[in-house]
Amino acid sequence: MIVDLEIICIGNELLIGKVKDTNAYYIAKQATKLGANVKRVTVIQDTIQEISSSVCEAIARKPQFIVTTGGLGPTFDDKTLQGIAKAFNRKLEVNSKALEIVKQKCLEYAKKRQLSPEIEMTPPRVKMATLPQKTEVVNNPIGTAPGVRVDAQGTVLFALPGVPVEMEAIFNETITPLIKQAVGNSMFCEWSIFVDNIMESRLAPLIDKIMSDNDGVYVKSHPIRSENKPHVELHLTIMASQEQKPAEKLVKAAKELAILIEADGGSVIEALDR
Amino acid sequence: MIVDLEIICIGNELLIGKVKDTNAYYIAKQATKLGANVKRVTVIQDTIQEISSSVCEAIARKPQFIVTTGGLGPTFDDKTLQGIAKAFNRKLEVNSKALEIVKQKCLEYAKKRQLSPEIEMTPPRVKMATLPQKTEVVNNPIGTAPGVRVDAQGTVLFALPGVPVEMEAIFNETITPLIKQAVGNSMFCEWSIFVDNIMESRLAPLIDKIMSDNDGVYVKSHPIRSENKPHVELHLTIMASQEQKPAEKLVKAAKELAILIEADGGSVIEALDR
Repeated sequence: MIVDLEIICIGNELLIGKVKDTNAYYIAKQATKLGANVKRVTVIQDTIQEISSSVCEAIARKPQFIVTTGGLGPTFDDKTLQGIAKAFNRKLEVNSKALEIVKQKCLEYAKKRQLSPEIEMTPPRVKMATLPQKTEVVNNPIGTAPGVRVDAQGTVLFALPGVPVEMEAIFNETITPLIKQAVGNSMFCEWSIFVDNIMESRLAPLIDKIMSDNDGVYVKSHPIRSENKPHVELHLTIMASQEQKPAEKLVKAAKELAILIEADGGSVIEALDR
Repeated sequence: MIVDLEIICIGNELLIGKVKDTNAYYIAKQATKLGANVKRVTVIQDTIQEISSSVCEAIARKPQFIVTTGGLGPTFDDKTLQGIAKAFNRKLEVNSKALEIVKQKCLEYAKKRQLSPEIEMTPPRVKMATLPQKTEVVNNPIGTAPGVRVDAQGTVLFALPGVPVEMEAIFNETITPLIKQAVGNSMFCEWSIFVDNIMESRLAPLIDKIMSDNDGVYVKSHPIRSENKPHVELHLTIMASQEQKPAEKLVKAAKELAILIEADGGSVIEALDR
């Protein structure tokens, strides 16, 4: 079954070139490996309006999953939950389970650093536990702010923190099993061939032939612009159910492509199972 | 003047976790330094429908600039120009200037690699020179496929190749001067303070105070999750005209923030002009 997933990364730091986003890459790689179809990544600024409208736009495309990253913390610029509340027209309310989690994390922080106990539930702390109505608290095994799950209009949306280790921990613990279940026995395979001495424009009709002869196999050419390296990487991928033996299909297509390339004067430098 | 810019990165390889996007980061960083407001990054798959709809969505938000990366090459999956043609409802036609460029690049490739001359204008080569009507060819000082400029509905859209060195060369040669001109004397400044022994939730009200006392200064806290490093980076930014002396405003705000943090028991480890 085709399982679409969209990623929304929230934070000005990603749009001013301060932080190189690694979260979208991580989620895209993991979700693809699990057999999901990552349809789109949207990176937006820290405003309630941007968060709300990009969530609404994603929901309208009806993916099975949306994962947002960032904006769950205690400071004024952490507006993800407000944006989600606006998108789904739900009120925000203090969630007692989330509040207990935040309280425990504050105590742990102070204890670890031998500071006086941080027990006061100040407004910024309560903010981290103020969730849209009818949402579910998701365990954050590492950081203070819990993740959030919202089910709406056939889509499951997860709001995860932006700190990569926290995001990854929640993704693996909570989202991975759900994607696996949704995907069933569909799997993703990839294979690379590195070639030289042949232009991409000459490879184009060979790629067309291989794709028309090998149903389900997708071939992309990637020019490589480093000295002393092969000129082009041909990346073959397939997403299919296990019964269709996707790995075997891919190897067959790769072999056929290599033969065509050499017959046309190109040099196949290396072939790699990925 | 506020100059909005959007980035659309096109390519399945970015959504399956094969390639870590660096283009959006590069453009975002450069454009911000020049004083532009990078509003959104959208990463999409290689389909005409996705390209067309994401261009239309961006155009509807009325940014001054849109930069797309990827999908200008000769292979079947290079669909950017078809997507743009669909978005603006323009026909595709062979552009004689672009065709001449592609021809020259093919000759150079063969000469450099001592191959027999590549003079035949095969369909994949003609494809790279087949542009939507009423578009302008943009010089690509490095690769084969030229860039494209489209002016529509008050927005200037540039379609650049996905290979980073080619994209960067065109960006610097063609787009940078245009952004500079549009931005006028607006400039972007940033400053960082690294702090320890104080939770983000405790920093929140201090950040609020600094932002309300220092008009135009934006402060974001970034938790750092590495051992033996300060716990939080506070990143101060401002975008303002030169006459407003943004750098001085920023230093003043940073100093005030550092004083508040130390008064609240936090440790300021380092302050850095960026």
